[in-house]
Amino acid sequence: MDQITVDVSTLTVNINILWVLLAGFLVFFMQAGFAMVEVGFTRSKNVAHTMMMNIMVFCIGAIGFWICGFAFQFGAANYTYPAVGAAAEWNFSPTTLGAWGDLLSTGLRIGEQWGILGLSGFFLKGIPINAAGILAFFMFQMVFMDTAATIPTGSGAERLKFIGFVIMGFLVSMLIYPLAGNWVWGGGWLANLGRTLGLGNGAVDFAGSGVVHMTGGAIGLAIAIVLGARIGRFNEDGSANAIPGHNIPLGILGTIILFFGWFGFNPGSSLGIQGSLINLVALAVVNTLLAGAAGGFTAMLFMWLTGPAKKPDASMSVNGVLAGLVAVTAPCAFIDIWAAFVIGAIAGVLVCLATSLLEKLKIDDPVGAVPVHLFNGFWGVIAVGLFANGNPDTAAWNGVEGPVTGLFYGGGMGQLMAQLIEATAIFIMVFVLSWVAFTILNRFNLLRSEPADEIVGLDIPEMGSRGYWEGSHPNIRTII
Amino acid sequence: MDQITVDVSTLTVNINILWVLLAGFLVFFMQAGFAMVEVGFTRSKNVAHTMMMNIMVFCIGAIGFWICGFAFQFGAANYTYPAVGAAAEWNFSPTTLGAWGDLLSTGLRIGEQWGILGLSGFFLKGIPINAAGILAFFMFQMVFMDTAATIPTGSGAERLKFIGFVIMGFLVSMLIYPLAGNWVWGGGWLANLGRTLGLGNGAVDFAGSGVVHMTGGAIGLAIAIVLGARIGRFNEDGSANAIPGHNIPLGILGTIILFFGWFGFNPGSSLGIQGSLINLVALAVVNTLLAGAAGGFTAMLFMWLTGPAKKPDASMSVNGVLAGLVAVTAPCAFIDIWAAFVIGAIAGVLVCLATSLLEKLKIDDPVGAVPVHLFNGFWGVIAVGLFANGNPDTAAWNGVEGPVTGLFYGGGMGQLMAQLIEATAIFIMVFVLSWVAFTILNRFNLLRSEPADEIVGLDIPEMGSRGYWEGSHPNIRTII
Amino acid sequence: MDQITVDVSTLTVNINILWVLLAGFLVFFMQAGFAMVEVGFTRSKNVAHTMMMNIMVFCIGAIGFWICGFAFQFGAANYTYPAVGAAAEWNFSPTTLGAWGDLLSTGLRIGEQWGILGLSGFFLKGIPINAAGILAFFMFQMVFMDTAATIPTGSGAERLKFIGFVIMGFLVSMLIYPLAGNWVWGGGWLANLGRTLGLGNGAVDFAGSGVVHMTGGAIGLAIAIVLGARIGRFNEDGSANAIPGHNIPLGILGTIILFFGWFGFNPGSSLGIQGSLINLVALAVVNTLLAGAAGGFTAMLFMWLTGPAKKPDASMSVNGVLAGLVAVTAPCAFIDIWAAFVIGAIAGVLVCLATSLLEKLKIDDPVGAVPVHLFNGFWGVIAVGLFANGNPDTAAWNGVEGPVTGLFYGGGMGQLMAQLIEATAIFIMVFVLSWVAFTILNRFNLLRSEPADEIVGLDIPEMGSRGYWEGSHPNIRTII
Repeated sequence: MDQITVDVSTLTVNINILWVLLAGFLVFFMQAGFAMVEVGFTRSKNVAHTMMMNIMVFCIGAIGFWICGFAFQFGAANYTYPAVGAAAEWNFSPTTLGAWGDLLSTGLRIGEQWGILGLSGFFLKGIPINAAGILAFFMFQMVFMDTAATIPTGSGAERLKFIGFVIMGFLVSMLIYPLAGNWVWGGGWLANLGRTLGLGNGAVDFAGSGVVHMTGGAIGLAIAIVLGARIGRFNEDGSANAIPGHNIPLGILGTIILFFGWFGFNPGSSLGIQGSLINLVALAVVNTLLAGAAGGFTAMLFMWLTGPAKKPDASMSVNGVLAGLVAVTAPCAFIDIWAAFVIGAIAGVLVCLATSLLEKLKIDDPVGAVPVHLFNGFWGVIAVGLFANGNPDTAAWNGVEGPVTGLFYGGGMGQLMAQLIEATAIFIMVFVLSWVAFTILNRFNLLRSEPADEIVGLDIPEMGSRGYWEGSHPNIRTII
Repeated sequence: MDQITVDVSTLTVNINILWVLLAGFLVFFMQAGFAMVEVGFTRSKNVAHTMMMNIMVFCIGAIGFWICGFAFQFGAANYTYPAVGAAAEWNFSPTTLGAWGDLLSTGLRIGEQWGILGLSGFFLKGIPINAAGILAFFMFQMVFMDTAATIPTGSGAERLKFIGFVIMGFLVSMLIYPLAGNWVWGGGWLANLGRTLGLGNGAVDFAGSGVVHMTGGAIGLAIAIVLGARIGRFNEDGSANAIPGHNIPLGILGTIILFFGWFGFNPGSSLGIQGSLINLVALAVVNTLLAGAAGGFTAMLFMWLTGPAKKPDASMSVNGVLAGLVAVTAPCAFIDIWAAFVIGAIAGVLVCLATSLLEKLKIDDPVGAVPVHLFNGFWGVIAVGLFANGNPDTAAWNGVEGPVTGLFYGGGMGQLMAQLIEATAIFIMVFVLSWVAFTILNRFNLLRSEPADEIVGLDIPEMGSRGYWEGSHPNIRTII
Repeated sequence: MDQITVDVSTLTVNINILWVLLAGFLVFFMQAGFAMVEVGFTRSKNVAHTMMMNIMVFCIGAIGFWICGFAFQFGAANYTYPAVGAAAEWNFSPTTLGAWGDLLSTGLRIGEQWGILGLSGFFLKGIPINAAGILAFFMFQMVFMDTAATIPTGSGAERLKFIGFVIMGFLVSMLIYPLAGNWVWGGGWLANLGRTLGLGNGAVDFAGSGVVHMTGGAIGLAIAIVLGARIGRFNEDGSANAIPGHNIPLGILGTIILFFGWFGFNPGSSLGIQGSLINLVALAVVNTLLAGAAGGFTAMLFMWLTGPAKKPDASMSVNGVLAGLVAVTAPCAFIDIWAAFVIGAIAGVLVCLATSLLEKLKIDDPVGAVPVHLFNGFWGVIAVGLFANGNPDTAAWNGVEGPVTGLFYGGGMGQLMAQLIEATAIFIMVFVLSWVAFTILNRFNLLRSEPADEIVGLDIPEMGSRGYWEGSHPNIRTII
């Protein structure tokens, strides 16, 4: 073994990088989960269309994020705040992932503290191929963006033109998501609300209930509104028709895959395992596990006791699981275990109520992306301001300068206000940009599929082939 | 890099914890495998019911295990045996996962050595949120429990009331599994058979052929017996009708997912990678791989040469894979590689014979959970007593005080007797408790679905929605 | 924590081993991806047959590789080249995975430099169970072999007798793949072309565009030719009929699973994370991500703009993703990020052109295994000779003695020639051996299924059971 001449510092950085990569792989795999959920809970006549959106959103998003998304989000991550000096330099992850030097140091900001977006790192230019930490960081952030970008394909399912989807994919990966990401994670103005307005630690969002899920959910809301409801979803008298998913097994398979991937999504946001960061990792794991379980359980109970069929409804139960996971995403490293249970349990009920609300508003969201990601993303962001327990280990986490303390733990209103501002700002910016873009696309007839295509199913008109095809087994007259 | 001030001891503990978490994620993902196997090898009219059992068993189990299951299983893990003194303290994993202090030290035992169950750690109370090791350990043990809890949903498939399933889920996660787990892994009486009765190292079960698989299989046997056979499974003259699964692709997908997850299940039970523990990890990986392959191959050959159809039967072949994996679970870190092949090869035949036996006994186990998990769990526990090779590295593993040596390697009958006692005790305790509970539930009409519901399929009567739904593609008149 | 007495060297080796194992698990999971792709893009009447090939190829391959495949491939990995002396000893991975001593040191070679195959390590004999590094290495190489072995099941789908498949599985795992593997990765003659003929670094293939994918693709080409086309694939006038896959959702799910597994396949080939190896890991991750995305995007565009239907064809788009991944497999650690994009983008078009070419040649390859793996494997091997950028970190990688530099970076023709020789040698050896073996098998009527069986579907005649079965839901008259 005499050939090995590594020192413990290098080994530590390398392990941090390995953890970020492994977590990133898990987050990547969530794409399969989203695909299965969306295809399972929609109709069989649109499956090729739905599946193609789910694989191509990754391809499109990766290219868009490489071109400029990453630069907009993190191009100004590594700069010095004059007000606080070099010692308090806002450095996202050089500590755990190795030195980044001046790689990401150019951005657009108002005054010195109100960062708007980054302006370096386009095409990963200037980043050497041996900068493992930043490459791993790029990968991790790319799959986070992908999560946000794939959420609205659920809201727009069964009636979105493929060309409109492609444009949406570039728009989200290149601009909309990076903006939200910059503000909270890229050294932007929301992260600095503590320094500028004295609001707690500024907006704190461990793994992105706001940055990722509210962003995806707000885009989803915009596309659902601009597209309008699927043909047959609502009757003339205002009543709604359920359009059940055609394949519960695939839908629930997708939910389990998403849960699996969430173990990369939440704990991986520690961006390292060194020292006390491992405490954040393990806590995030247990809180994620328990919040997801609680959300599924309360949603099941809620539908069983109060739902129209008085049954443990499958689709709402799995949305309850996802709601619990979304809600605990922001606070998972900042809260006690009982609080994770409470947050998840509330999320399970909230998702049921939000689903009813959307139906009353005649907004057609085929797979419930808005109730799951927007409503519970909001709940998760707020929950930090309520339940954050002052966990001192969080000070080891990049971007947080001291313990995060919520209202219930004596932190006063400061942190809660910062969280409210984060949620509001993300919602308004994302929804407005999306709504404008989609409205323009729709004006040019690039967004809503033709009625005849929608009725026959989008697979042949849009994709050129069926998703399920006739077999020739003698006992299977019709097919899958 | 000067900010990094970690020492190699802390780094080592953190990496051990990371490994336990990663392995736990893989074990969690086995839930998707169980779901696919169960839904693929049953009928299309029950798919929503089967899938909901498979996702809700995790939600229910997580809550139950958090409330009291973990406390019952490990609440007395960390106490001193007066007979052997503090130096030989039975400490499950503090060595590799960091100090736990007095967190888990209260239990119920007869005399000083015959531990029955733990009594601390309810709701994870008293465990600080920065105790990463114990939180990771909780997560890992929770998903192990989940494996045991999900096994019987296969045996009870297609005729189990959902309310009965919910109660079963809580029962298994809160009491039955924790009891078995305490006895072998929580410092209980089976682990101490070496100290008390001089039987080898006491019951040794590396990753749970007995604790997890026999427990799940014995509950599965009880529910299959109490429920009785599905309508149409057996004829009046005693002959049996095959009820083939409706979706072999999903069933085999599930098997591959389970195999994938087993690489967390078995090697992860090292609970660390430091020092010579890595040898246990790598050996467990290779032995797991080879035993699973051997089981699948011999089951395929056995059916091809001796089966009724003289064909390489798909469902028995994949059960052969699973049987090999179950059988090697207990011995995987204690045996030579050729022995893994032999154990797996025997398991592949055993599962075919056990399936025939159950059919002769008119016990209806739709997916073969009892042949796979109970019979081959038993075979795996016994195999330790036969093939354990005195591997000195096992002494680094928590809970084992010296090399484990089986009959074929000169260890005499002691270890084999300990293994027999483990297998017998687990089977009796689990089967009796389960049978009593299920019989009571059945008396209150909470267990077996109504005949009319069963005939029409449980999806609408029990879950309120179909699992497959008519699409509207013009060429797909009926649907999936 | 005082019990922990590990040193940083041991910890580093252990972490390297852990990384190899984790990457190996991901590669194992690719078996599920191949299964889903193959079953999704073929017909419903053959699903049990296709799935059984995909799970049994692993069982068969694991046994065959254990018996002799590993010995043939790596049995001579650790020997001294007289010409270069002990200091330049060709040692595959002892540096990162711990000392292997003389375990693998016997082989067949011509003169001293032209290694043909290894001759030690049969049944892993002589390898102690505590040699974690070599056991992990065995596991990792076994799943790589499995990838090559499962590729041709796609080309032979829907018309291959199961007995013929079983023989093919043993042949590939025991002889054909190990030969190719030995020549490039086992210290064989292709790896030594730099020393013997002065051609750059000799053949360099980071993760196996040539060793794995060209091998699998060439076997696939041979089986497609020897089997002939499926009944109905080509008309008498020479025109072709499309036979669309029956289940696009499963096919695309499989593609996402494969992408996920590729994050083990490519980065894992670093065989460690210590020191600057982490740079290879992170670079391989980002390049893999971007090449796969680019391949999918250009294939989609190409079909949309030039395809017969002028639509974003689903099956070609996902084959574009896979083509990009295959092509970047050899060069992923040796190239700049923009080059990964270019390589992937070209792969996406190449796979479409190759698919047309095969159709013109009347070669019936149901899932496109030859266009994806053979053509793009070739492209990937060549790409190293063009785009390798002299990355000095690659010198830390086993088997490379200095920076690898391609034509576009001033490396001259030497490296490109070595790559051309690798691609040519692998193709000729693999195709000839496979073609001869398949022709003999076919002569004995062991290869092509009976026409009547093929028409009715192989599930009942070959496997004894249907893959999809009639359910009994009243509204589902026919079934899945």
